[in-house]
Amino acid sequence: MSATLSPTPRTQLTRHRERGSADRADLFAVIREALVCHVGIVRDGEPVVLPSIHAVDPDGPDEGGTLYLHGSIAAPWLLQAPGQRVCATFTLLDGVVVARAAFSHSMNYRSAVVYGAARRVDSGTERDHALRLIVDHVVPGRSATLRANTRKELAATAVVAVSLAEASVKARTGGPKDEPEDVAAATWAGVVPLAVRAGRVEPDQEGVVPDDVTRRLRDW
Amino acid sequence: MSATLSPTPRTQLTRHRERGSADRADLFAVIREALVCHVGIVRDGEPVVLPSIHAVDPDGPDEGGTLYLHGSIAAPWLLQAPGQRVCATFTLLDGVVVARAAFSHSMNYRSAVVYGAARRVDSGTERDHALRLIVDHVVPGRSATLRANTRKELAATAVVAVSLAEASVKARTGGPKDEPEDVAAATWAGVVPLAVRAGRVEPDQEGVVPDDVTRRLRDW
Repeated sequence: MSATLSPTPRTQLTRHRERGSADRADLFAVIREALVCHVGIVRDGEPVVLPSIHAVDPDGPDEGGTLYLHGSIAAPWLLQAPGQRVCATFTLLDGVVVARAAFSHSMNYRSAVVYGAARRVDSGTERDHALRLIVDHVVPGRSATLRANTRKELAATAVVAVSLAEASVKARTGGPKDEPEDVAAATWAGVVPLAVRAGRVEPDQEGVVPDDVTRRLRDW
Repeated sequence: MSATLSPTPRTQLTRHRERGSADRADLFAVIREALVCHVGIVRDGEPVVLPSIHAVDPDGPDEGGTLYLHGSIAAPWLLQAPGQRVCATFTLLDGVVVARAAFSHSMNYRSAVVYGAARRVDSGTERDHALRLIVDHVVPGRSATLRANTRKELAATAVVAVSLAEASVKARTGGPKDEPEDVAAATWAGVVPLAVRAGRVEPDQEGVVPDDVTRRLRDW
């Protein structure tokens, strides 16, 4: 697998190309850190965008690695997706850029956009692998502590794969980029860093919080 | 304006209808709290989803209120959007639901999905209003402290409006919903609440952090 992303007409950045990255490792890092993605499909000729949890397998069977999505077999977008083009977008907000002029206000972020045809995952082995990856995406190590899925649960779950071959990655970092004449003025400017943080765990029962959850809390 | 959302074939929830809200106030609350939305368009018959900042005007000129989006006039998706259908989706992550079985793992969230035709905003008055709302969406009160946009800045900026008439709102709250036989087992379960939090402000210059930024920090 190539370590770099080759732009296609879909993924070639048109704005702020200097913010782009061609490093596939940056793509995996954004997808791994994002807790949800926003999946776009075309339904009756119109766009539909829905939030979804996901997992990534850099060594998955699809070119460039595999993005896995899942959901209820009763979810129309998942039923419709296989064979069709989808777009999955991942956005990590890192801060608000407070500038001296309205026009220079911005956000610091890392984002990724993946374009591909959805493939329905039918093999029991790959479905099991994908569902474990999705649980472990949210809480690493969790799937090994859980009972196996029942046949009923598996029958109710649709799994979809998307190749990561065609993707773009973009990031903005740093302070405001005001015009020199604005910097000379008295208006304050700076960055408010933002991050997702965990609050106090709300146990559903007595007992010690397990290691997988405790380790995960350290990221937040 | 109706205080309730009337489902259409597009917005009728198909899964977990009990999580839906028909209260328009809930729609505005989700859109107001979200720092970015994910906008879907159809380009060459295929879905494209891009992150965007936004603002809402419940009393805007469009039925149900107005969602404003903006960007560079060089951004292809904004140039293409007017007259076409778009879907704007807002997702607030409130927690990770750690359950006893893989199948019962979930997320707590509030989300909104808006479907509408994009309208290009041409009037100078409405453009100015929308651009102020967008700055104030991120840092309330900020726009009043800034110089007016220059003609050059305005010429470089496209503003698009979407009616909020057709939208759905959904939320999940509370703990894991495991099957009774799983609750009897020893596996720990609970919720890890998540929220966006601000870190220490990074000033671009000396001087006192202004009131608008200080007030905003209290939300995070």
